Parts: sequence; C-alpha cells; structure tokens
Amino acid sequence: MNDRTHAELGPSGRIQAAGIDNRADGGSARLADKALLARTSPTTLDTTHFDTVRFPAPDWAAERFAAAARDGALAYTTYQGSDDVRGCLAGPLTRWLGLDVDPDDNIMLTPGTQAGLFTVLAGLVDQGEQVALVDPDYLFSERILTFLGAQVTHVPLRRRTEETSELVPDLDRLEDAFRAGVRLFVFSHPNNPTGAVYPREVLDGIAELAVRHDVTVLVDELYGRLVYDGTSFVHLASLAGMRERTVTLLGPSKTESLSGYRLGVVVAPRRIREAAEDVLSLTALRAPGYAQHVLKGWLVDDVDWVADRIQQLQGLRALTIKHFSQLSWVGLAPQQGTAYLFPDVTALDLPDRAISEAIATRADVLISPGYQFGPSGTGHFRVCYARDEQVWDRALGRIVDVLDDLHRNGAA
Amino acid sequence: MNDRTHAELGPSGRIQAAGIDNRADGGSARLADKALLARTSPTTLDTTHFDTVRFPAPDWAAERFAAAARDGALAYTTYQGSDDVRGCLAGPLTRWLGLDVDPDDNIMLTPGTQAGLFTVLAGLVDQGEQVALVDPDYLFSERILTFLGAQVTHVPLRRRTEETSELVPDLDRLEDAFRAGVRLFVFSHPNNPTGAVYPREVLDGIAELAVRHDVTVLVDELYGRLVYDGTSFVHLASLAGMRERTVTLLGPSKTESLSGYRLGVVVAPRRIREAAEDVLSLTALRAPGYAQHVLKGWLVDDVDWVADRIQQLQGLRALTIKHFSQLSWVGLAPQQGTAYLFPDVTALDLPDRAISEAIATRADVLISPGYQFGPSGTGHFRVCYARDEQVWDRALGRIVDVLDDLHRNGAA
Repeated sequence: MNDRTHAELGPSGRIQAAGIDNRADGGSARLADKALLARTSPTTLDTTHFDTVRFPAPDWAAERFAAAARDGALAYTTYQGSDDVRGCLAGPLTRWLGLDVDPDDNIMLTPGTQAGLFTVLAGLVDQGEQVALVDPDYLFSERILTFLGAQVTHVPLRRRTEETSELVPDLDRLEDAFRAGVRLFVFSHPNNPTGAVYPREVLDGIAELAVRHDVTVLVDELYGRLVYDGTSFVHLASLAGMRERTVTLLGPSKTESLSGYRLGVVVAPRRIREAAEDVLSLTALRAPGYAQHVLKGWLVDDVDWVADRIQQLQGLRALTIKHFSQLSWVGLAPQQGTAYLFPDVTALDLPDRAISEAIATRADVLISPGYQFGPSGTGHFRVCYARDEQVWDRALGRIVDVLDDLHRNGAA
Repeated sequence: MNDRTHAELGPSGRIQAAGIDNRADGGSARLADKALLARTSPTTLDTTHFDTVRFPAPDWAAERFAAAARDGALAYTTYQGSDDVRGCLAGPLTRWLGLDVDPDDNIMLTPGTQAGLFTVLAGLVDQGEQVALVDPDYLFSERILTFLGAQVTHVPLRRRTEETSELVPDLDRLEDAFRAGVRLFVFSHPNNPTGAVYPREVLDGIAELAVRHDVTVLVDELYGRLVYDGTSFVHLASLAGMRERTVTLLGPSKTESLSGYRLGVVVAPRRIREAAEDVLSLTALRAPGYAQHVLKGWLVDDVDWVADRIQQLQGLRALTIKHFSQLSWVGLAPQQGTAYLFPDVTALDLPDRAISEAIATRADVLISPGYQFGPSGTGHFRVCYARDEQVWDRALGRIVDVLDDLHRNGAA
C-alpha cells in the first residue's frame, strides 16, 4: 500500500471555475488538510474510508469485469450507461426502492457516487439559488454547492426526544428554509458522518413538506444497505408524491467494497436524469465501460452476504464504543447504520485540526476532523470502523490515550 | 453488443449549472442527435469511435487491472492519482514529452481524458473570459467552455500552402485573438477531426506567440502516438518557454484501446495541476482506483506494437480514400495522424444532419456530422476508420452509393 489516501480529507481550496470562489476558509482548510497528510507516515492507520482489504468485494465483481474487458465491444456505452446494464438493474432497483424504475427514463450510471452528486446538483442548481443541506452531512455536498454558486441553508440534526441519542433533521428548521425560498433539499440517509437512520414519521414529514412547498430532494443512500439489526429503512422516493421530485444516489462502493471500480447509480425523474446526463457528458462522458457490467450482479441474491457484513460491522461498532466509553467526557451517539462513529469531544475545547493532528502524530491514526461535515460537526471527529478487529482494537487504545492526555494536559 | 453508443454524438443541450446556458442551438442539436440515434438499428455500423474489438487492448492491461483488484488496498488513491502509478509514469513521460516531468508536481490521473479536459478548463477559466479554440476541433472543448461561461474565439485551420492539403492553425488569426485579450488557447494535436499533425515551424510559432502574449495553452495529445510514417511529432510543452504555460492531455484510450478503463493523464505546471485537482475532487474524486494501475505498463517497451497498429491504420486510411475518391466532388484532405477522415461534402448543399441521417438510415452507418466540430466543420462529416477491413470496405461502398445518390437526386 504505497498510497497515502485522503478519501475525505481532500482539498477544499479556492476553485475558479465559473468565477466562483469556494468558502472563505477554503484556502487555509486545504493547506491544513494537506499539512496533516504530510505529517502521517506509511504506517499510519487511515480511518477516513472503508478498509477494502478487511472487507473485500464479492468474488463475482472481478469476474464480471474480466468478462466485459474480454468483450471489447463493451468499452463504449451511452453517456447514461450501458442499455444492457440498466436493463438488468431496473428490476432489482424497483424491488429495493419500492417504486417503479424505468431503465431508460430513470437510471444513470456515473463514475462513482460523487459524479452522481455533482452532475445532479450541476444540472439542478442555478447560481444564487437557495439549497437546504442537513448539518452535519457528507462534506462534499456543501463544497459542490458552493462551487456552483448556491446559497446553502443548514438544517441541523437534533435529538429526536430528550431521552434518546437518536438524531433526526429538525423539520421546523426545514420548513423555515422552504418558506424562505429553498427549492432543493440535500441529505444523506443513513447520515454520513453520524450513521443516523431516520424513522418513517420523519421521512413522511420531509415528504409532506417537500410536496407542499414544491421542493426537489436529493437523498444520498450510499449506505442504505448498511442498516443494523432491528431498524427498518424507508426510501424517501417511495413515499406519496415523492417519485417525481426525488433523486436517489446509490452505489456499491461501501457495502460491497467495490470502491476501486468507481461506480454510482442515479435514480431520478427523467427531466433530472437528462439534465445530469448533459453534465456527465461534459465532465467524464460516461462511467468506466467495463466496470459498469459489474453492476449486473448487484442487489441480487446476496441477503445472507449483506447480513454477515452487517454482523461484522455491529461487532466493530461495539468495540469502538467500548473504548471511547472509558472517557466519560466524550459524547457518544451511536446510530443505526453506516460504519461511522462521530464522537463529541467539545470538552477538549481545542480546534478540530489540533485534535486530528495530535491523533495523527501521536496515535498514528488519521481521522476526519469534524468541521469538514458542517458547522454542527465542529468539536467532533469521524472514524470509519470497517477495519481489521485486532489492528483497530490497538489503534482505539492509542486514540483514547491521546484524547485522555489532551483532556488532562491540553494540547501542550 | 447491446449498446447503441454515441461516443461523440452526445447531448449539447441547455445546461443550467452555474446559471449558464449552452450555445443557442443546444436544445435542438441535442434533439436532432438523439433523433438520429433513435433511427439507427442494432446492426448499424457506428464510426463515431474506435472499434475496440478489431483493435483490442494489449494483454498486459487486463492482467494489471486484475492484480490491482486482488490487492484491495489499491482501491483508494489520492485525488491526484496513485503515488505508485505516478512514480512509474514520470520516467516514460519525461522521455516521451521531452521535458522533465515530476511525479508529484506535474501529473494528475483522471477518469478518462475528458475529465482532464473538464477539470483543467474549470480550474483555469473564469466566467466571461476569452478563450481561443482551433476550428474544427474536438466537439466537447467548445461545449465545456460554453458551460463554464467562457467567450470562444475560433482560430480556423487553413491549408499551409496553396499546393498542399496540409492543415495548420492560422497564426495571424491566433495573434489577433491574443491581442484581443485571449489568455488561454486550446487545441488538439494531432487534430480531431481532420488528423492534421502540425510541423515544428507552426508549433514554434504558437510557442513564440504564447510566450510573447503570456498565454496558457492546453494541448490535447490524445492521438499523439498515432502519427503516420515519415511524420515527426513535436510536443508543444517541450519548446522554449512553454513548460510553465502548457497543459498536455494524454491517455491510452485510443492508441492502446484502453477505452473501457476510463483513464486520462494531465501533465501540467503545479499551479494548474492543483486547480484541476480541486475540480476533480468535486466532480469524481479520483480516477478508477484499480484501473489506474493499468498505466504502469503504458508507454514502455511497445515500439513494435505501436508501429504495427499504425501500419494497420494506414492501410485503412488508404482503403477509405480509395472509396471516397470515386466521387470527384468530395473534398479529401487526408492528414498524418489519428484514425479519422473528414470529407468535405459541401457540394451536396444539404444540412449536415440531413446527410448524417441519410447515411444512417440508407447505408446503415452512423457518422459524426461536421457541425459538431465547429463552424468550419459544416459541410463535412467525420468517420473513424479503425474498423474491421471487410466490414468497413462494404460500409464504405454503401456510404459512397448514398452520397452519389444524394448528389444526383438531392435529399428527396
């Protein structure tokens, strides 16, 4: 492993395209992130993304790719993605999402879910437009919106009741945003970075508001298959009135660890799929041709395989919570999906970057600082616990030691 | 082959990102292109791109991909691309381009050359900025520039002397553009669609003007290895004063038929590479992880292999010219590279779309109508002759019959 990856610790620098600057602190954030990466070593454990060695892709993936590569005729596809692959996906997607998915009208394949996010937002958002975004949420949603010149309104997560750690979007704040002119709402579900899965009543509430205020919703369900025992997952697009106003982003890069193939799937109303396809044709033309054919095996006949993966991740979640629970001042709100934990370390009263730098240099672990996920993320950090159990057990010990020392003695 | 590809017959529709409209005829062009595709059948011969069955990728490509996929640790890389792969590429690129290429400062890997084109232009171009573009040239360069809000000045190709069919950019018009405020010049070399390879004196002229007027130049050398016998190819970036102001786009998707892997390579000064990397992180994060490792075998020890491929393409060029030469009214200007011919059929006095539709429906061959390549492309069409010899021989017969009938009897 020669590469020092920074899956989600990337540049947020000043971007000049279309004459739009990134957020004001972009330049310094980029420099800080790069400085942090520069201080890591080849042995540093990188928790900013899934470990695809510990959680490898299913065997059928490489086989399907190889078959497509041997058939050179599959190199080029329409921009929207292979007719053949979309045809294979329509049935499984219809069953999985609980809504009728037409292979030609509603599906677009993209080079990773990120390209789905970018192309849909670029196809929908006009400069100066108001967009609501859950806070905290996937860091690149806000970066892309800023790049496109949108005005972002943050809709914070709040505890569902005073007695629970369950996190849900604040629907009163969401309605305020819609009343103030927002015409697009963006959120990840399960939430990245917290792992929150929202109950049906919250999704019904979002749907009701979206219909009443005629708002389009983009829901990033990249982690939609990584939902833990006893939790049901409701697809927003399946709710009344939502099919024609919802874009659902899906992909096999996390649950199935197909990260190295760069594959995303957009399910959307035709008008939005067409606008996004226009942007895709400019930014990348199409998803990787041979890799597209890997999707023909996706979402099919793998109930046991996914259940096993979830069991393993639940074990790692328990291990992670056990370690952090040793520090009474760390706030823990373990949620029902993803492979992320988002500990609250505001008691340290230190800048996020100082904490991530201390953990990188003294515990030899790269974590994602909380500010990257939005204003509410400040004072937290994100770890992805999809790791080798023994390596992670030792790394958690080192992180807890560093946090304990920071709490007793400060950053020194 | 279930897919009806439209590699370069794609949408040019109204794109709303950043509030910018595509060119005024975008909507109708998109509809016309789609209507043309809808009239093709599964048997239609598609000449809008290379036939990767007739010209397959070298064997080492699939092997390197499979090895990377087995090593799941290679799934994620920095946005710029794998440190390992960039390290392997620096030497071959330094020798090939004739300039010192630093793996960290100067190289970025992209999901296809298109993403290199988009990310560099988005990183460089401000809204309202003036950009010069050769005419005709790769159709997406203008579409991307328009999407970004740039003002495009066309620099037409002209015959180098009255006695030759050799095409070169008009340097007087280029200097006019630079004097009028252009700060970026974009062109493909060898030229797509004409196949023109420019002699050293022309490239020296471009370099001298760029240095004198302090202009940045983006040269798309995707076909830089497909240069025919007796022609030398000069890399613009290797000329005096150009290293610090030239972006070179390269990729293995044509010469090596690695189209299905979606791989592009940007070689650029560090400041431009960084700006483009910012955009890449938003639009796609990174090039496909496993596919990146295919590049470790690229540009190395394949002199005989490339020479053989060029011999085959020269044979196909001769076959193509032989057929079209039967029609004295078709203008032919066969050039020294690529696998494209760009016949002049202005004598028909018909709209490009009527010609492409007649050839699609009556000869069962999909060609690229000339208007797609810029104002000077009108009255031409482009064919890619990288095809099976016998299939192409018969298809050329059908095209010539349709053209002959159109010339005698009109579109009827």
